[in-house]
Parts: sequence; C-alpha cells; structure tokens
Amino acid sequence: MTHYPITQRNKVIRSPKRASYDPEVIHAILDEAMVCHVACQSEQGSLIQPTLHWRVDEVLYIHGSSKNGLFQQLLNGAEASIAVTLLDGIVFARSAFHHSVNYRSVILYGKAYEVTDEVEKRASLDALMEKFHRGRSKEARPANDTELKATSVLAFKLENISAKVRTGGPVDDPEDMELPVWAGVQPITLQLGDIVYE
Amino acid sequence: MTHYPITQRNKVIRSPKRASYDPEVIHAILDEAMVCHVACQSEQGSLIQPTLHWRVDEVLYIHGSSKNGLFQQLLNGAEASIAVTLLDGIVFARSAFHHSVNYRSVILYGKAYEVTDEVEKRASLDALMEKFHRGRSKEARPANDTELKATSVLAFKLENISAKVRTGGPVDDPEDMELPVWAGVQPITLQLGDIVYE
Repeated sequence: MTHYPITQRNKVIRSPKRASYDPEVIHAILDEAMVCHVACQSEQGSLIQPTLHWRVDEVLYIHGSSKNGLFQQLLNGAEASIAVTLLDGIVFARSAFHHSVNYRSVILYGKAYEVTDEVEKRASLDALMEKFHRGRSKEARPANDTELKATSVLAFKLENISAKVRTGGPVDDPEDMELPVWAGVQPITLQLGDIVYE
Repeated sequence: MTHYPITQRNKVIRSPKRASYDPEVIHAILDEAMVCHVACQSEQGSLIQPTLHWRVDEVLYIHGSSKNGLFQQLLNGAEASIAVTLLDGIVFARSAFHHSVNYRSVILYGKAYEVTDEVEKRASLDALMEKFHRGRSKEARPANDTELKATSVLAFKLENISAKVRTGGPVDDPEDMELPVWAGVQPITLQLGDIVYE
C-alpha cells in the first residue's frame, strides 16, 4: 500500500501540501506519540478525553475502564475522531502573521471494535507495555482475570486516516525579509528522564 | 472564587479524587501547555483538531483560518469540547494492571464567541505571541488588516471546566509488594531548545 485511500472524511482540506496519507509517515507518528485525544458525540454533546494509544500493524488500540463514559459511547457504536499530535518547534517569522509551529499530527475517524478474545486482549496489552518500556511485559505480574475484565481494549483499523506535517523555517513575505526582526525555529523535544525506582 | 462551579457537564466521574476545579490548578495547566485539542459535532460526525491555545484571565483563546471547517462549526454555534493534556511521567508498577501515567489535564465544554473588536483581537493575538516568547509582540511586524481578517480568534469562558491530575509513584496491591519486580516513575519533560536563527 503506497498510501491510505483518500475519502471525503479524511481528506485534508486546509494546507493540503502538508497532508500525508503515507503509512510509513502515519505509523511513525502514532508510534512516537504516547497520548492521543479521542472525541465522540453523546446525548450531552461532544465528549473528549486524552488516553494512551498504541499500534500493532494496521490497528490503533486504546484501553480504559469499561465503566468510562466515552468508552461506553464508543462501544455503543459512536464514531470516534482521534488526534495524535507531536509538537516539534516554534517558528518565529518576521511578521506576526507568519509565526507558526512545526508539528506532526494524525487524525483518524472510525468506529471501534472491542477486543474480547482473551489471547488477543493479553497480546495487545503486552504491546502497550512494550511500547513504553521494552521487556516490561515479561517482568510485571500479568493481569488476573478480574483485572483483565475491568479493562476494555478498543481497536480502530487504520482507515479514514491522514497525517499533517509542517517542517522547516519561517516563510516570510518577500517584502518583510529586510526588516530588522530576528527569525528562526525553537525546537521542542520530549525528554524521558531516568527512572526513579521505589 | 475558590473553585469553578461543578455542573453535570464538567463533573469528573472516573477517579474523582484526581479531579480539581481550582482556578489556580487549571490556569497553570492551560498556561504551561502549548497545544489543545478541540472537538465538536458536525453533520459528518465528530471533528477533532489540534491547535495552539492561550489564556487571558478567565478566557481561553484559540485562533485559526476563518475558512477552517471546525472553526466554521464553532462559529455556527456548535459546542466545543477542549482538552489540554500534560504528560509528566510513566508509572511502572509491579503488576501490569497498575501501570499508569502521571499527568495534568483540563477539559472544557462550551460555546465559542468570536473576537471581532479590532483592539481586543490584536491584544489577544499579542498575548499568544507573548506566551511563546516574551517580548515578541513588540518585535514582529504587526498584522495588517488583510492578515487580521484572515485570522479568526475564538474565545471560551472558563466555565464547565475541570482538571484531573495524577502524581506520585505506583500504587500496587499489598500482595504484590514483595514480588521481584522493579517499580518506579520515569519523568517526562518538554525541552525547549536553543533558537536556530535564520
């Protein structure tokens, strides 16, 4: 697959030059980011929630308490919109208007299916632990049946998905280039510190 | 105000001990985080989008192209759900089940109003620049009328808002404490690098 199919739902309208439907680009963003934001409609209006996500092949997983309100909506068939965002830099232009940020983001629209098969569910939760610390799924005490039951794992196929990426320096208007105003990029990185054992 | 009013819409149901309605706590999270995620309903389903946000007193602002699809929905009266999330650490417990993350997050539900008064609009956009780099609003070429028109500034009152905060180490079951499994917290911080001038 050279790129995910472009549909009415996932087509990037604004700044289409920054859009990507390339699985490699999209996988890399999903794998690097730790947190996604999931939204769906409910009777009280739109719901939104941050949660951890992880990917195995062409499936994006999230997990949470089976009593969670947003999860209940998704289990009842509400379509989710999911955003994964990495902020890479602040872009300082010579004009206020052209200030920007460098980022890599993914948006996915889709209905969840619940992972109910025990083998698949345990394997997917192991993959979550491995994402955050390689080898951890072999170290920690595995979930017992009660714990496994209390956790819902929801899966989304990587369909109706798109990425948007901005890189590089400021893009100033030609007539602003000689202004006595500095311009540049301030990089932003996520730092994982040393583990504090207890 | 000691805390924001708790309503049916903003009351934290899951893990209510982690909830906060304290303006100081909520302001600090909004001010530290650079990106929020905004969702709302549309005819095609739920929409979601990352965008920069900033706060002045009791108002949260976002801005974007006036042609942006989600902004159009908000301008037409759709209620927004907004999430601001800071990930502070990965919490490694002795059992798989009790693995967690430390985080500070804010959820706000509300309808936007558009900032149309030119003085107020310029002041709010200056506040955005100041958030990302103190003094920048005095350095960069100000927006001209065309640029100002192309930018929509949407404002949300800090109502129907809540925070959720997890701090500290793993909380293991008593019977797991003697397991030969390491436990601890890996801190996560956002690093702002040196500006690369160009």
